[in-house]
Amino acid sequence: MKEQDVIIVGAGLVGSLLGTMLSKRGYSVRLFERRPDMREETISAGKSINLAMSDRGLKALEIAGLADEILRIAIPMQGRMIHDAQYNLSFQPYGVGNQAINSVSRGELNKRLLSMAEHHGVSIEFNQRCVDVDVLNGSVTFVNEQSGASQSVASRLIFGADGAFSAVRARMQITDRFEYSQTYLPHSYKELHIPPAAGSDHGQQFRLEKNALHIWPRRSYMMIALPNIDGSFTCTLFLAHQGSPSFDELKTEKNVSAFFQQNFSDAVPMMPTLIQDFAANPESSLVTVKCSPWVLNGKVALIGDAAHAIVPFYGQGMNCGFEDCRVLLECLEAANDDWPMALRYYEAYRKPDADAIADLAVENFIEMRDKVADQRFLRRKKIEAFLHERYPDRFIPQYTLVTFSPNVPYCEARRIGIEQENLMEEFLSDPAIYEDWTKPDALAHIDAVMQNRQPVMYKPLSPSSG
Amino acid sequence: MKEQDVIIVGAGLVGSLLGTMLSKRGYSVRLFERRPDMREETISAGKSINLAMSDRGLKALEIAGLADEILRIAIPMQGRMIHDAQYNLSFQPYGVGNQAINSVSRGELNKRLLSMAEHHGVSIEFNQRCVDVDVLNGSVTFVNEQSGASQSVASRLIFGADGAFSAVRARMQITDRFEYSQTYLPHSYKELHIPPAAGSDHGQQFRLEKNALHIWPRRSYMMIALPNIDGSFTCTLFLAHQGSPSFDELKTEKNVSAFFQQNFSDAVPMMPTLIQDFAANPESSLVTVKCSPWVLNGKVALIGDAAHAIVPFYGQGMNCGFEDCRVLLECLEAANDDWPMALRYYEAYRKPDADAIADLAVENFIEMRDKVADQRFLRRKKIEAFLHERYPDRFIPQYTLVTFSPNVPYCEARRIGIEQENLMEEFLSDPAIYEDWTKPDALAHIDAVMQNRQPVMYKPLSPSSG
Repeated sequence: MKEQDVIIVGAGLVGSLLGTMLSKRGYSVRLFERRPDMREETISAGKSINLAMSDRGLKALEIAGLADEILRIAIPMQGRMIHDAQYNLSFQPYGVGNQAINSVSRGELNKRLLSMAEHHGVSIEFNQRCVDVDVLNGSVTFVNEQSGASQSVASRLIFGADGAFSAVRARMQITDRFEYSQTYLPHSYKELHIPPAAGSDHGQQFRLEKNALHIWPRRSYMMIALPNIDGSFTCTLFLAHQGSPSFDELKTEKNVSAFFQQNFSDAVPMMPTLIQDFAANPESSLVTVKCSPWVLNGKVALIGDAAHAIVPFYGQGMNCGFEDCRVLLECLEAANDDWPMALRYYEAYRKPDADAIADLAVENFIEMRDKVADQRFLRRKKIEAFLHERYPDRFIPQYTLVTFSPNVPYCEARRIGIEQENLMEEFLSDPAIYEDWTKPDALAHIDAVMQNRQPVMYKPLSPSSG
Repeated sequence: MKEQDVIIVGAGLVGSLLGTMLSKRGYSVRLFERRPDMREETISAGKSINLAMSDRGLKALEIAGLADEILRIAIPMQGRMIHDAQYNLSFQPYGVGNQAINSVSRGELNKRLLSMAEHHGVSIEFNQRCVDVDVLNGSVTFVNEQSGASQSVASRLIFGADGAFSAVRARMQITDRFEYSQTYLPHSYKELHIPPAAGSDHGQQFRLEKNALHIWPRRSYMMIALPNIDGSFTCTLFLAHQGSPSFDELKTEKNVSAFFQQNFSDAVPMMPTLIQDFAANPESSLVTVKCSPWVLNGKVALIGDAAHAIVPFYGQGMNCGFEDCRVLLECLEAANDDWPMALRYYEAYRKPDADAIADLAVENFIEMRDKVADQRFLRRKKIEAFLHERYPDRFIPQYTLVTFSPNVPYCEARRIGIEQENLMEEFLSDPAIYEDWTKPDALAHIDAVMQNRQPVMYKPLSPSSG
């Protein structure tokens, strides 16, 4: 055991993983969680979008020794299955070969992370609501949600891993010069359900293509569906909160039914509990939180959603939080476990990446709900895939940089993506390329440009990955 | 008495004025203040920039019947007195004729507003810290800062007038879809002091020109001085928090002394307590807060700095807060005291104006610390004054729109100001105008353009001022 104790507020996905990593490194870790132990209780349902675990998340899980176990409860999705307005299906691969993102249940993942943390010696206390943080001296006051008893726990290192509405961050927010913003999309979301096919013995019969992320893009709104290992799909409707169409207009069974018949009629027969689910499940909002600094006095630090809540449209919320943990560990390594130095590294490397993925996530909503149904966009995606195949180190699609390139920082992925977008505009404006990029004239143009390009270059993700 | 009770959290400038206005309108008003009664205690010194009361503030005070009393404790400042790097003085009038802004002590103003509120039947409870707000049912919980006793007070109408770090707003911030941002300038400020001239019997002998706002512009930083009725000046140094030069570098007497000798040597002999003041007075930060909505459930509303904290560089913080009160009253009038409707009007009219003055205030910092020392800027100011004199309804300088035009909404002042800036760029690019705008060639150009312009038009400030 190192002499340093660590307190982590929040035993969600990021807090549990961070606890495991620090415990494995020799620290004595105490994890405090506001909710009851979810392994013993029924999970509050109806608010969870399925997670799409990709290479950044997996790389961090590997460090904790949990990647294989999690992949066993995940379903790979190799691409998007678009259900267009005429209910034609088209498949858009995410990457090449067997590149895939992995659909996994948030609850299942969290339970396994909790057990993994305990297995590695982390102590976890549940029903502990953080009510105050002494950011100067380093202590946290918790109130037991069941008994009402309060305790104050001191530590020279306190992590706020307590999510988008972090209590630790709320305390930091009232310190001087703390930059903070919370902004909401005009859209909300609601969880819905497609059960396994009837007559299935083992709950393994999927009503839709299993290895895909299904999207019903409808320009200003959309529905998505992600597979679960029991054969069901978790669906999410993203729709404006107010206006037309909006959740505000869907207050009666009749309106809900008509809206789904009109927009998602191929899915309706697979959703026997649609009306009940719609009434029972909450309408949840979509927040982006940015703040600075993440570290106060070298001892109180934010990580995961507490530091940077993002919207779910790039599938990177959990992946980014897990990558925070990996980067923090690499900073600790580079700083020889000098914590104030490690935390300075962590914030300096990580804050620009969190800002970048927050912006990318908002931008990707427009791609998912609107552009994926657009012919020119589809053409462009194909040309991008072709370019990547022909010049693998000189052209890497932005989606690949974000999703399948865990050593490329998000802010570099964004920068490279913008630069490549300009290049694509040039190529798309050449009718020869637009019509058939494999013909000699088109190839001549492409090769002339590409042979003058440098390989994609990027800054390191952390001080020890340079 | 109207049946409706009103709770106001915060008995600062805005809370006291709002209480007076609503009480005069027949409401039963209870005002709660965290601090002790400042009329009985010594005011905590060292953090207050003198206020510059201008027409918006005065117009609201007139409604409360307090304008004359306040003008008696104010000193009119007709313009800026610039102390340049060579200590040459130059005077830049703010407006025309006897247009002036009025230097007034925050403490004195607040004391008189408190007494005015009590005089009009407002009950004021001091030492009451707001610890919770029930935004759904409408109640506020206060803890007595002296006894520790807690009380919960219910009302169908609750105003948060509790300043830039509002407790009411903090409670609203955790409701769904509440947009919020707090951003800090890289600069801080510190209050300093120039006493009256020695040997003065009545403390009325001013060491600097009395009827001016003094500025020592030094590009990235500046000092200002505003007169007080006792013959002293309240000085404020605005300087970066970190970097060079910065407050961070001024941690020793030697450094402070050298910095002032180098930059403000004409003022140093007038500041006998400079070193002590610098050590004793805090370095304070400069925050801008924007949020939305200002009104929850038709019953909890924000006003003044609680709704829109702004930086002090346009001298509009208090003026804007007072104007909030005037607009709210006009909304009540237009809505026939239907409060939910009045609050909808209030937010719809007022939020764009608060956003506009927040941005103008940040922009004006650059004008004060840098541009006022620039020849081209001074030339432009003179041409603007000339244009305004020759075409009083077709050209109104932005400073005049903000400061001396209480019926022009801030957002309109900003829009008109940007449009006029383009016009000025056109005029300044004509060498004839730049050299001497009163000569025939220059006048011909000016008249040709101006005679084609419409008079300045703007939207109304409130629903009843249209």
